Amino acid sequence: MKEIKKSVTMKDVARLAGVGVGTVSRVVNNEKGVKKVTLDKVHKAIKELDYLPDAYARGMKINKTETVALIIPTIWHPFFAEFSFYVENELSKQGYKLLLCNIDGDKKEIEYITMLKQNKVDGIIAITYSPIEDYLTTNIPFVSIDRTYENKHIACVTSDNKAGAQLAAQKLIEKGCREIAFVGSHNSTNNETKNRHLYFEQYLTREGYHCHSFDIEEPFDNFVEQLEVFLKEHPQIDGIFAINDFVALDVIDILEHLGKKVPDDVQVIGYDGIRLANERRYPVSTIKQPLELMAKEAVQMLLSVIDGESYPLQSVLPISFKEGPTTKK
Amino acid sequence: MKEIKKSVTMKDVARLAGVGVGTVSRVVNNEKGVKKVTLDKVHKAIKELDYLPDAYARGMKINKTETVALIIPTIWHPFFAEFSFYVENELSKQGYKLLLCNIDGDKKEIEYITMLKQNKVDGIIAITYSPIEDYLTTNIPFVSIDRTYENKHIACVTSDNKAGAQLAAQKLIEKGCREIAFVGSHNSTNNETKNRHLYFEQYLTREGYHCHSFDIEEPFDNFVEQLEVFLKEHPQIDGIFAINDFVALDVIDILEHLGKKVPDDVQVIGYDGIRLANERRYPVSTIKQPLELMAKEAVQMLLSVIDGESYPLQSVLPISFKEGPTTKK
Repeated sequence: MKEIKKSVTMKDVARLAGVGVGTVSRVVNNEKGVKKVTLDKVHKAIKELDYLPDAYARGMKINKTETVALIIPTIWHPFFAEFSFYVENELSKQGYKLLLCNIDGDKKEIEYITMLKQNKVDGIIAITYSPIEDYLTTNIPFVSIDRTYENKHIACVTSDNKAGAQLAAQKLIEKGCREIAFVGSHNSTNNETKNRHLYFEQYLTREGYHCHSFDIEEPFDNFVEQLEVFLKEHPQIDGIFAINDFVALDVIDILEHLGKKVPDDVQVIGYDGIRLANERRYPVSTIKQPLELMAKEAVQMLLSVIDGESYPLQSVLPISFKEGPTTKK
Repeated sequence: MKEIKKSVTMKDVARLAGVGVGTVSRVVNNEKGVKKVTLDKVHKAIKELDYLPDAYARGMKINKTETVALIIPTIWHPFFAEFSFYVENELSKQGYKLLLCNIDGDKKEIEYITMLKQNKVDGIIAITYSPIEDYLTTNIPFVSIDRTYENKHIACVTSDNKAGAQLAAQKLIEKGCREIAFVGSHNSTNNETKNRHLYFEQYLTREGYHCHSFDIEEPFDNFVEQLEVFLKEHPQIDGIFAINDFVALDVIDILEHLGKKVPDDVQVIGYDGIRLANERRYPVSTIKQPLELMAKEAVQMLLSVIDGESYPLQSVLPISFKEGPTTKK
């Protein structure tokens, strides 16, 4: 990215071009009546000094960019795609544009944050499972999804992971499962998804069931292979709550490979509520995150931060159960 | 969106504030040494006139925004999500940012184009199946995906629909199908997807097969219901090429509903190569569009247009067959 040079002013341009500041202003504003020879001199000076009038914009509320950046792991994932769809739609209603930033591409979080600070965005909405808070030293308006921050006053939107985990446990018990397992992974950051395991196990225990647990630490090798070993070692398992729908799909593949039928032998519930597209079906029974609501809330919070209004630091939104083909009706 | 008023210049601001143009320039450039009272007068005048120095940017190559807009029907669709992922990644490598515009949200093509003209983007990449060319009266750099334009010099990137249609026909014949059908829809715009029917049927005829055709005109009601009637009326069909993977999924649902097994009774091939995400499987056997290549080509073409370099008006990229669970191995 071309870095904006704050130190270069219209006066510098005028001096180098050998013209008055008013002339530079006329050129900059595309006004008519400037002689070709003068125009060329000013353009040459602008180019030479890398002068950008945009440098003016910083901190002046009058010149908001009306652009918000969305940082996500990858847009090529139905959960992030659905969330982005609703964020863009909501921003668009409010007169804002959306800049898309995929972390799984060539740029990493820190590069994006640096770029966004240098360039003009009014704020950032981010879904990131790495410790991005270290880069958030400046006061750029920021709303985080699925993460909470211990020592920072950062706005955060999540689905109700606790209620979701409890509902998954309740549904598996209701549907007749007796040997129930949690399957997932975790990392060292303080993200909300950890509550899925915690409250699932707590609910089962309270109801008198044992919780079989497969919850490995990231980064990992051979997740699928390790999971297959776990499922082979526990052939009695008849109900599984997976930390997200993609892990649920992995579980289903492994079970089929092991000769088990879903949902007849083993029932599976995921988390997220992914679908290929709006009009498509849920591939797994799932705890659905209210992505439209989460997107609206995130945009609302961010605009409050931008406008200096008060806002809740954390917003927890309600989940629901969606019946797919992997549980018994 | 706040509209940029072209007519307001730094001179107007100076006049209203009762100061010199040089003072306005110093304020605009955040220079030190401007008295508080003067600062306030200038800010007030800027606000009152809605003055934006950005108006200067238009047409001056030196002040490129390094932002490109991507207009797609919806990001919540694996085909558009994958394409967007690769476009953003490629733009990012080239120092450009991506503005995401979903047509299926609240804004329509024309609103986006208007917004993009008013604001600053260096160019537009668009996948749109409505006649957007009517709005493209200005010379904003533009690359279209899957559309060709009769009377306009607009750059276009497509997959090789002709080769894809022929390959689908060839694969169905090779895999033993004898009563083969095309299933899809079309509208009045001149888009490349029409070639999928044309060259599929041509290939079958040349090889001595009849092509059963279900190809209704958009907009339509009850696509699925009409398709079910067609499949009931032609119970002998044992191979189907669907215009895209989503239609293939519809076909599979209807066949299952009619008691037919896929691929045992009927084999189905789609077009696009959709997957939930990069690491996920193909849900249908499919003619895969080379989306990474198409994204790179679209970005390259757009940057050539922006930089005034020569570029090919149409780029046609190679397809491939991906074996999914809906054809016999």
